[in-house]
Amino acid sequence: MTYRTDQATDLDTTRVGDTTTVSGWVSRRRDHGGVAFVDLRDATGLVQVVADPEEIQIVDELRMEYCIKVTGVVQERPEGTVNHEMLTGEIEIHANEVVILSPSKPLPFMLDDRSEIEERIRLRYRYLDLRRPHMAANLQARSRLTGAIRRTLDELGFLEVETPTLIRSTPEGARDMLVPSRLRQGNFYALPQSPQLFKQLLMIGGVERYFQIARCYRDEDFRSDRQLEFTQLDLEGSFWTQEDVLVTVEAVLKAAAREIRDVDLTDPFPRLTWQEAMDRFGSDKPDIRFGMEIVVLDDLFEDTEFGVFSGALDGGGTIRGINVGSRELSRAQADGLVDRAKELGAKGLVWIQVSEDGSLRSPVAKFLSDDEQSGLISRLEASLGDVLLIAADRWKTVSQVLGGLRLDLGRPNTQDELAFLWVTGFPMFEEEDDGTRTFSHHPFTSPVSIDEMVSDPDRAISQAYDAVLNGVELGSGSIRIHDPAVQRQVFEVLGIDEETAERRFGWFLEALEYGTPPHGGFAFGIDRLAMVLQGEDSIRDVIPFPKTQTGVDPMTEAPAEVDETQLKELGIQIRAEVIAAREEAGE
Amino acid sequence: MTYRTDQATDLDTTRVGDTTTVSGWVSRRRDHGGVAFVDLRDATGLVQVVADPEEIQIVDELRMEYCIKVTGVVQERPEGTVNHEMLTGEIEIHANEVVILSPSKPLPFMLDDRSEIEERIRLRYRYLDLRRPHMAANLQARSRLTGAIRRTLDELGFLEVETPTLIRSTPEGARDMLVPSRLRQGNFYALPQSPQLFKQLLMIGGVERYFQIARCYRDEDFRSDRQLEFTQLDLEGSFWTQEDVLVTVEAVLKAAAREIRDVDLTDPFPRLTWQEAMDRFGSDKPDIRFGMEIVVLDDLFEDTEFGVFSGALDGGGTIRGINVGSRELSRAQADGLVDRAKELGAKGLVWIQVSEDGSLRSPVAKFLSDDEQSGLISRLEASLGDVLLIAADRWKTVSQVLGGLRLDLGRPNTQDELAFLWVTGFPMFEEEDDGTRTFSHHPFTSPVSIDEMVSDPDRAISQAYDAVLNGVELGSGSIRIHDPAVQRQVFEVLGIDEETAERRFGWFLEALEYGTPPHGGFAFGIDRLAMVLQGEDSIRDVIPFPKTQTGVDPMTEAPAEVDETQLKELGIQIRAEVIAAREEAGE
Repeated sequence: MTYRTDQATDLDTTRVGDTTTVSGWVSRRRDHGGVAFVDLRDATGLVQVVADPEEIQIVDELRMEYCIKVTGVVQERPEGTVNHEMLTGEIEIHANEVVILSPSKPLPFMLDDRSEIEERIRLRYRYLDLRRPHMAANLQARSRLTGAIRRTLDELGFLEVETPTLIRSTPEGARDMLVPSRLRQGNFYALPQSPQLFKQLLMIGGVERYFQIARCYRDEDFRSDRQLEFTQLDLEGSFWTQEDVLVTVEAVLKAAAREIRDVDLTDPFPRLTWQEAMDRFGSDKPDIRFGMEIVVLDDLFEDTEFGVFSGALDGGGTIRGINVGSRELSRAQADGLVDRAKELGAKGLVWIQVSEDGSLRSPVAKFLSDDEQSGLISRLEASLGDVLLIAADRWKTVSQVLGGLRLDLGRPNTQDELAFLWVTGFPMFEEEDDGTRTFSHHPFTSPVSIDEMVSDPDRAISQAYDAVLNGVELGSGSIRIHDPAVQRQVFEVLGIDEETAERRFGWFLEALEYGTPPHGGFAFGIDRLAMVLQGEDSIRDVIPFPKTQTGVDPMTEAPAEVDETQLKELGIQIRAEVIAAREEAGE
Repeated sequence: MTYRTDQATDLDTTRVGDTTTVSGWVSRRRDHGGVAFVDLRDATGLVQVVADPEEIQIVDELRMEYCIKVTGVVQERPEGTVNHEMLTGEIEIHANEVVILSPSKPLPFMLDDRSEIEERIRLRYRYLDLRRPHMAANLQARSRLTGAIRRTLDELGFLEVETPTLIRSTPEGARDMLVPSRLRQGNFYALPQSPQLFKQLLMIGGVERYFQIARCYRDEDFRSDRQLEFTQLDLEGSFWTQEDVLVTVEAVLKAAAREIRDVDLTDPFPRLTWQEAMDRFGSDKPDIRFGMEIVVLDDLFEDTEFGVFSGALDGGGTIRGINVGSRELSRAQADGLVDRAKELGAKGLVWIQVSEDGSLRSPVAKFLSDDEQSGLISRLEASLGDVLLIAADRWKTVSQVLGGLRLDLGRPNTQDELAFLWVTGFPMFEEEDDGTRTFSHHPFTSPVSIDEMVSDPDRAISQAYDAVLNGVELGSGSIRIHDPAVQRQVFEVLGIDEETAERRFGWFLEALEYGTPPHGGFAFGIDRLAMVLQGEDSIRDVIPFPKTQTGVDPMTEAPAEVDETQLKELGIQIRAEVIAAREEAGE
């Protein structure tokens, strides 16, 4: 039994006259002049099969997506029927035998790229969705992407090491997913949010250059671009400075862009400190494919009579603006911008348009002096028709508002251009909503200065850095703490008392005591990188079998109920209130 | 700040006179003639540092495994002190500066390969254990092994596709590990025992050639070579016959052996049917590095007067023997063999030694006729001193007993030779201890003949096959069922009624309805392959961070108790009896 002698796209005019056997799916079928033309699709592409239903009766049974085997002779297509858009468009197979390997029920949706199908239906029939050309291309690209990453790191002398996924719960900013233990009832493993501590242990273990393409887990409330499980490239090196990390990650990202986009990126990538990124782009993950940079206007308005501006300055705030270019701005559109600014946290927004006659059209124009008006035009390099947006508030709010409006109004809607950059010098700590201090990156990140961290923690800068692509945070890394005394100090600044630190991290603090090398590393999301490189809007389109935003697989209906006996073996039970709620819902 | 200009083994006599900076660990330190000799170890190996403590006082502080940075000049070693067993044995670094990067506490055990350390202690300090040369070599080998596997499959046009690890519970012969869902309280994900159904879905999705190095999970009661989580190479192809699978896996295993052992294996590998393997070696995973094959003796004893033999034959059993070669056999040793046979399930064991004078020494010799005695010698090709072991019982018991004794007495105690083979033609079903019928491989395996499967299921042969290396089952595979009607028939033979099949597998049976290609595949354990190739006795020595046999990580003490609030969010609680037992134990 042979299913095939050739793949579809192996066939071309050099093979004319050869007998061939191909297997694949019926992608299209037309009848013309008593003869059937079947586009047979396999993993490589399409080839046209010509069959006479009078000779081969089974051809009349063929329907869309039937899986078939065809034996026949390769022939040149008759003049005028050559299809130049098809790789095999110069030939066709004249069938001698057609075998139906598997029939197909009528399809729930068409398998071309043009159909817009509800995502839940696509996921319910993911195995059909994956036959669509752009989804098949996404799977292929992802495989090539991880291949290129591995080759690059292999050449750089990295070891791929598998770290455990049934670990002890560690606090990394999101909820752990738990796995009850059967042999130690009442105890739980956690699924890793990242291999962070294990890769640091590998450094202590003398590995020096580690990487892993690792499955990680975060039980966050779903946002559009999050999944319960995701994949990250995780890497770490010993005797490394920040420069070593950045150069290595650049080599990996260059290889990725070359493999998937066939472009050679210029290195080193642009670098911005976190402060610069916030000041110029109002974001710690700026999209630098376009300008509209934020301009400081404080000095221009230091004597202003316009109360909103003077009030902001008096309150220790700042006045900043962006020029969003020449565009139509109806009153309704202007109101829309103000509403959006409020959504982003502003109390209001000043909009100004440079009219045809050079005067400023704005509800606040009358409050601004001539000097202020001309200063605005020159500072924001405004031309006729340009729209200027100005916010006055605390620095954080102004940055957030102008950064958000900048993206709304300027962001390209394709991913054709690739703009990578580094953001460095992140603050060591940040404030939680409840006012408590927490780590910005994770609690194993090294401060730039230990003294500064202790004396003025809220202004302390860490040795952490992010890689950003087209406004998407690809990943982050840092130089780690390798001195157990410093690690204890960081816990202290975070308000973790000694006893708690010992209970939760004692084993790790002990490991640091045995000649830990200085080390640092990085991790970035494969899903997000693949998404941008493939020009997709959703990570779900580059994940073979994703979950919905509520963590459900519509195909298998996971998660599901399980037998009570299984739970009993694990020493757990479902809480009474959950069962009651389920019964009430009539399940 | 530069930690190093060179790795230890970059340095040789061509570098004499160069100033170099190296970083690593103090592997050994001797003092001789007022000068300190420090073996500095990094990931590449060792280099000797010479320092004068009078000039560089810090040298006196150096202890084992301190992490240090040394700057100095490369010099040839004085005549008579060259060390030919060391890659850098012709040179040494004369230190100008030594910096302690991290001190180390005194070690809990010596880091050489000679020390025998209790495994629990090794795992408690795994980060130190990994610094030992053979453990470092195991990590490196494993990375090279998966690299070679990936390169091979990449060249063969396979896509690496990541399948989900939070799935719906499926029955594959072992217990699932469960993950409670927070967004759907009272529901659970399962961790996959293998990517089986998802890889079949990829075939339905048109991928045609898939592989993945996949983390899998089995909550089995621990045996010496099992872990809760393990890694397998998982592959699948469409339009494939058994031959296609075997050729592909052979290519992968050949690449693995070449990479790790630098040997070129002859292909195709030997193939035995399951029946042959059981008959000749008494095992479905025979170690064929040595003979001692099982010989059928039924016809020799068809008229025997020895009751044990005639009784076995009359009861439908069989008489078989092995020649375990010339060896000392005291009465106590012989009794030991009989005891071992009983452990293996025999009621007794006949032992015979060919004495110096050619007569047979055996408690049963007197019951055997001259013809039977000479027949035994000729059938078992016995020479002077040879020990013959004979079992008479049901076929299954005889195979088990002689197969077990054969391994005890013949198995080489190194893994120097690599003997791969295929076992094919496994039975479709087998009997569970309680007499019910279950699948031998998994319920998605195709029978050789559907008619036979329905008419005589207990004798039906499947299209399943195992790869065996030196008596270790590396993995198994099969041609799958691609016809939903056949899949339903298999469920029926397994006693799974239609409603249950629909409830548990309805989504998969539906997927099979959409033009499923014929397909088959394979999976083998990376841990076991790495173990044999590295000549280790335990898979734990090739897993970076394994668990103990009770599923515990002695380093982090996972699994651990978690906060009640975390459990509440997940809608679960620990059962009262578990809490009571814990309190009783005084925890």
